[in-house]
Amino acid sequence: MSTITEAKIIVSSPGRNFVTLKVVTSDGVVGWGDATLNGRELAVASYLRDHVCPLLVGRDPARIEDMWSYLYKGAYWRRGPVTMTAIAAVDLALWDIKGKVAGLPVYELLGGKAREGAMVYGHAAGADVPELLDDVARFRAEGYLAVRAQAAVAGIPGVYGVGHGGEVYDPADSSLPEEQAWSTPEYLDQAPKYLAAVRDAVGPGVHLLHDVHHRLSPNEAARFGRSVEDLGLFWMEDPTPAELQDGYRLIRSRTTTPIATGEVLNSIWDVQQLITEQLIDYVRTSVSHAGGITHLRRIFNLAELYHVRTGSHGATDLSPVSLAAAVHLDVTVPNFGIQEYMAHMRLTHEVFRPSYRLEAGLLIPSDEPGLGVEVDEAAAEKFPYEPKYLPVARRLDGSIHDW
Amino acid sequence: MSTITEAKIIVSSPGRNFVTLKVVTSDGVVGWGDATLNGRELAVASYLRDHVCPLLVGRDPARIEDMWSYLYKGAYWRRGPVTMTAIAAVDLALWDIKGKVAGLPVYELLGGKAREGAMVYGHAAGADVPELLDDVARFRAEGYLAVRAQAAVAGIPGVYGVGHGGEVYDPADSSLPEEQAWSTPEYLDQAPKYLAAVRDAVGPGVHLLHDVHHRLSPNEAARFGRSVEDLGLFWMEDPTPAELQDGYRLIRSRTTTPIATGEVLNSIWDVQQLITEQLIDYVRTSVSHAGGITHLRRIFNLAELYHVRTGSHGATDLSPVSLAAAVHLDVTVPNFGIQEYMAHMRLTHEVFRPSYRLEAGLLIPSDEPGLGVEVDEAAAEKFPYEPKYLPVARRLDGSIHDW
Amino acid sequence: MSTITEAKIIVSSPGRNFVTLKVVTSDGVVGWGDATLNGRELAVASYLRDHVCPLLVGRDPARIEDMWSYLYKGAYWRRGPVTMTAIAAVDLALWDIKGKVAGLPVYELLGGKAREGAMVYGHAAGADVPELLDDVARFRAEGYLAVRAQAAVAGIPGVYGVGHGGEVYDPADSSLPEEQAWSTPEYLDQAPKYLAAVRDAVGPGVHLLHDVHHRLSPNEAARFGRSVEDLGLFWMEDPTPAELQDGYRLIRSRTTTPIATGEVLNSIWDVQQLITEQLIDYVRTSVSHAGGITHLRRIFNLAELYHVRTGSHGATDLSPVSLAAAVHLDVTVPNFGIQEYMAHMRLTHEVFRPSYRLEAGLLIPSDEPGLGVEVDEAAAEKFPYEPKYLPVARRLDGSIHDW
Amino acid sequence: MSTITEAKIIVSSPGRNFVTLKVVTSDGVVGWGDATLNGRELAVASYLRDHVCPLLVGRDPARIEDMWSYLYKGAYWRRGPVTMTAIAAVDLALWDIKGKVAGLPVYELLGGKAREGAMVYGHAAGADVPELLDDVARFRAEGYLAVRAQAAVAGIPGVYGVGHGGEVYDPADSSLPEEQAWSTPEYLDQAPKYLAAVRDAVGPGVHLLHDVHHRLSPNEAARFGRSVEDLGLFWMEDPTPAELQDGYRLIRSRTTTPIATGEVLNSIWDVQQLITEQLIDYVRTSVSHAGGITHLRRIFNLAELYHVRTGSHGATDLSPVSLAAAVHLDVTVPNFGIQEYMAHMRLTHEVFRPSYRLEAGLLIPSDEPGLGVEVDEAAAEKFPYEPKYLPVARRLDGSIHDW
Repeated sequence: MSTITEAKIIVSSPGRNFVTLKVVTSDGVVGWGDATLNGRELAVASYLRDHVCPLLVGRDPARIEDMWSYLYKGAYWRRGPVTMTAIAAVDLALWDIKGKVAGLPVYELLGGKAREGAMVYGHAAGADVPELLDDVARFRAEGYLAVRAQAAVAGIPGVYGVGHGGEVYDPADSSLPEEQAWSTPEYLDQAPKYLAAVRDAVGPGVHLLHDVHHRLSPNEAARFGRSVEDLGLFWMEDPTPAELQDGYRLIRSRTTTPIATGEVLNSIWDVQQLITEQLIDYVRTSVSHAGGITHLRRIFNLAELYHVRTGSHGATDLSPVSLAAAVHLDVTVPNFGIQEYMAHMRLTHEVFRPSYRLEAGLLIPSDEPGLGVEVDEAAAEKFPYEPKYLPVARRLDGSIHDW
Repeated sequence: MSTITEAKIIVSSPGRNFVTLKVVTSDGVVGWGDATLNGRELAVASYLRDHVCPLLVGRDPARIEDMWSYLYKGAYWRRGPVTMTAIAAVDLALWDIKGKVAGLPVYELLGGKAREGAMVYGHAAGADVPELLDDVARFRAEGYLAVRAQAAVAGIPGVYGVGHGGEVYDPADSSLPEEQAWSTPEYLDQAPKYLAAVRDAVGPGVHLLHDVHHRLSPNEAARFGRSVEDLGLFWMEDPTPAELQDGYRLIRSRTTTPIATGEVLNSIWDVQQLITEQLIDYVRTSVSHAGGITHLRRIFNLAELYHVRTGSHGATDLSPVSLAAAVHLDVTVPNFGIQEYMAHMRLTHEVFRPSYRLEAGLLIPSDEPGLGVEVDEAAAEKFPYEPKYLPVARRLDGSIHDW
Repeated sequence: MSTITEAKIIVSSPGRNFVTLKVVTSDGVVGWGDATLNGRELAVASYLRDHVCPLLVGRDPARIEDMWSYLYKGAYWRRGPVTMTAIAAVDLALWDIKGKVAGLPVYELLGGKAREGAMVYGHAAGADVPELLDDVARFRAEGYLAVRAQAAVAGIPGVYGVGHGGEVYDPADSSLPEEQAWSTPEYLDQAPKYLAAVRDAVGPGVHLLHDVHHRLSPNEAARFGRSVEDLGLFWMEDPTPAELQDGYRLIRSRTTTPIATGEVLNSIWDVQQLITEQLIDYVRTSVSHAGGITHLRRIFNLAELYHVRTGSHGATDLSPVSLAAAVHLDVTVPNFGIQEYMAHMRLTHEVFRPSYRLEAGLLIPSDEPGLGVEVDEAAAEKFPYEPKYLPVARRLDGSIHDW
Repeated sequence: MSTITEAKIIVSSPGRNFVTLKVVTSDGVVGWGDATLNGRELAVASYLRDHVCPLLVGRDPARIEDMWSYLYKGAYWRRGPVTMTAIAAVDLALWDIKGKVAGLPVYELLGGKAREGAMVYGHAAGADVPELLDDVARFRAEGYLAVRAQAAVAGIPGVYGVGHGGEVYDPADSSLPEEQAWSTPEYLDQAPKYLAAVRDAVGPGVHLLHDVHHRLSPNEAARFGRSVEDLGLFWMEDPTPAELQDGYRLIRSRTTTPIATGEVLNSIWDVQQLITEQLIDYVRTSVSHAGGITHLRRIFNLAELYHVRTGSHGATDLSPVSLAAAVHLDVTVPNFGIQEYMAHMRLTHEVFRPSYRLEAGLLIPSDEPGLGVEVDEAAAEKFPYEPKYLPVARRLDGSIHDW
């Protein structure tokens, strides 16, 4: 029996912070996992280094299901982003190892390709409508079949999804959390208008997405959904916070605008009601924050039963290791919907060298064994951790709003 | 305005591991919080030290509600044991400070005493029935009004709740997780018998509890509940894992044996269905693992509306700081049921000096301002962290079971 | 232990009738409560003076939770406006005392400020559309961020919310109930038009509210809600009587116009279905008619779980004592929405001297200990009670309608 | 048109406190209403004297429906025991007048007799089982067909329904509320046993009732219901507090022991879910606390639709005026179940001279016009009001329990 001989955490910041798990077996096979939790990176790193890695050494890397239950049930304290991200990292590394042992890409172990590649959407944004239209056009020109459109809202400084002064938008860009303003009426007034402008510009053939980013109440979300119903959106994302799954009943009963949610949810229990009551159209749980391939596949399989499609979170807070794993899973499940995709910065690729490729709007996994991502540990050492926080939103009266 | 000038994490192991948060204000007031998550301590320590403490300095310690939302919504990634324990630690420290600023014990800030003290239950156990009866008698002799009874099950080594060779039972006692065996049929056969023996011995006037510890399926739990129905148990605890709240419907429809659950649950969303559908009788979420006084009070108030009582987790994995906070809240809510209580070891009290006291089976909070616990930092340094794990359960075929 | 040594009822009419409870402790601390129930004042005064005050003397003023349960459960006969207003008065007085004992404003005891102040809305009205627009403009000029708009309806004399001959509107202005006419078709025809005129005049940035005042059936309310959907109202208030909570399902399923209700409801049970089924967006129960801070906080916390915001009743039938308490609670709860506000008459301030202030459309609580309202008992004696009634509505055939 | 010329409140205490409304018409007809709310009498007296009586003078006494709506909707603030008792008093007086004007007993105006009389149940009690059996036998000897059985519970002083030292039990017997103890386990253990003893003694032909008096949680009530299922109880009364109507679902799903509730509920909205979901078998709302004949008839009619029977509250806190009205209504509705009956003291009959009679376990209304009760105002003056309170229950830890 092969055993795990080393389990090591690498924290690096090539452009942004990533927590990476390296698992080495007695046969010299190396598996990589991603444990990045944007803005809370070191807590997951500690969870793994101090509490999980000591458990891995000496265990059989082939027993992925057993390992999952061992870490999930063995921790006693369950669920939540830190725990499920830590378990996901181990899970990804073991799938990477299993593929390398088999000499097969991971998608083959998951049942083989059900499609050629995973359609992705890019993030278009603008400080005003013309800028937004330009950005959408840029994505179209690059071959994207689907584009998420976000514009600044006059009267609200620092809206989600829009960069400062023309830079690419990355929300986790400050060493203390930026405090942004929020006001619902302006958003409800302006967003449907700019989305209509985008639809006018691109015509009916382009998949158009929009991220509400948890900012509305269920009834406000219903109103928003109705107000854009004629635009044929691919989805409105996170229309209201989803911890209370009941909350989506109201939205669902009022509008046919498709609904996506789940990037902040971490387990099948967090989406069970959303899926079995058919309250959403796309489930956005991700391979790195929802327990790895082993657990996410179960979520996607449950979703299939209830006609819900996949639409995994895939911002650059997922390292290329996670993105590779996501694509391997995406191409195998019958109910794949879409994959979020933000290209990583060049610096990131000095450490992580993925083999997937973007072609005509689809992410195509390579045929390399395992997940197909090389990690350069020496390069990683050149980029020490830099504390970064996601922003916080406050209403005009100073009270905290969901960011 | 007073501001927070220091926020510091103390990890110590006076008998067992504790993670303690110290918050100091510009007025020199010190508040203490408990961030202990049994077996995953350092992850919470990192969450606080690396990601939360830098946010606290300069903020107003009086704005507890704002702080709660700031940390919960501001993290973006939500819920789960690590996150909610970290938030709880801050919350407890701020309530401690607020009480000290007001010159009042925290229970006064929560509406004042609704009862003289919080009835507790102790943990009686035995390797066989006579030993169990002796242990129950010992608790009764010490004045306990309520006793939890667990006995070894012949044919299953290492059952939950029973010590090795007569020692006091503390499950987190090994530097790698102990792997214990489990077999449901033996348990279902023997547990009702030893519980009947205890009831016979103590008569109807003593509150008798039992912890199933997540080991049964809902239908098995229903069978168990029926088999002990005539014993008039105070509760059966954690009859089945509760991540799927639906799972309790089956148990509930079959037996009137009262049900308690929640010690591994961390938020109001994790118990919302359990409570609003009246699937349980006691909610066991704890002040340190469910977001502090601020959040636990919301859970308890929701429970009150639906005739559900409180029964907070209170093993020695909660430091005296948490236990003090629990008692302050317990004595104020109308729907208090019972408080779990394991006396801390003498070593623990070299670091933590609480002012609550046990009298005639009730825990009585002191009238000292704040939470009323002194923490000796110098003493804490003498007890460095020692890695410990909770056990893991495996069925006889080697597969993982819920421990 | 401090005890209550005096509990006294003061009925006065400085501009309008108020019932005030004075509670004095053995330490000389004085707490004030408001027991005003518009048009039924003396019944609450009797409930307190004859049945509750004798129970207060000798009791511990710090035990607010115990007192609440003692008065609520101890009365045996429960709920309803008279009972819940009487309990509220005691509750407010005890919170006032607790704050004074702690040397802290009450909002500090409730968890501290979650926002700088409570956004209020004012009551604009007009005998015709131009008058209404003028009145709305006046509120805007005074800095109000939110305005409720009511206009006379041609063909219906004496519509709710509109004064006689240009006077400020106060409905309780007659010594016998005025009998007003009502006809639904005219209202359904004209109200959407005048609201559209207001929206046109103020633009999208102003919060615009409207009070239907229980006048429509659920289906009529649904029609009304749809007819104003494009105006982006902040809310439509009391679209149909809410004793039957089921009644809101029909409205809710038909329109996304936000719904507020609850000013005539007095307990958490009266809104439990409205909230848990998400049938409303704002709950308008008030601190003085829904059992005080202790009970209203439970309602607000339940509402928070279900994405329902607060929007407390706050007409001048609440004395400044209640308004102060409302503002203390408003600034602490995460799900605050808006606070109704009518400035009290100058005469009222000869008796009641509150320390809150209106600034840029927000009510700001002062930092004085307790609720921060001084009551001048000598001045109160100069304004003896004058019987006043709210009006009654009759349809054109003479039958009683909900006013 | 006849008009009301006088409306007067009479508070007297012939044995116990009663609030009586006298209405006189311009034709000299006198109608009597009962406004007694045990322990809160003067609040209702004030509600009527200060706020309602001034509205009655000059109005048409024949317009009972209009008066009901006028008082209910005209008060604006609705429901609750004080309001609904006040309205009931007016309603009873107007029905009394209408009967006298017609020269007919009120039951004729309600559709005529559907049965000869209303079966009643009496209150048997005992300090121990033999005493209880003696008391049950006494009621049987007096011809009662139905008996409620309550016994003292060893270990709990002052249990509901059992007198002190052999006196007839009247709970409202102290000038400050008596504080009684409560402990659920002893009750759950002993009550089924003494009820079994009673059933053994009386055989299957006697209707046996028991009052749980709000003391159990829903699950405890379910257990209790199961434990007495074989005894064939007529009903278990108030098994759990009923403000949360949802609370009865759990009980209902577990036991076929018939359930009665409603004496503390005051309106059709308070029982709507209980009835339409068939959660109870008997509705105990009373003619004096639930808005009079006009409103109670609606409740009874709704109950009929859902196979729920009537079982009105009828302790001696209802004056003979209310009891007469109850019997008039009882004999007319198809779904009558049973009527609670405690004989009034002899002193009471010095003021109130009813014409109903008890015969063979049935209360038979007389054929006198109206309600058939004479009130001696001169005698009433001899019995001034004496403050009395119902008791309060506290658990053994000092916290308030439902009495």
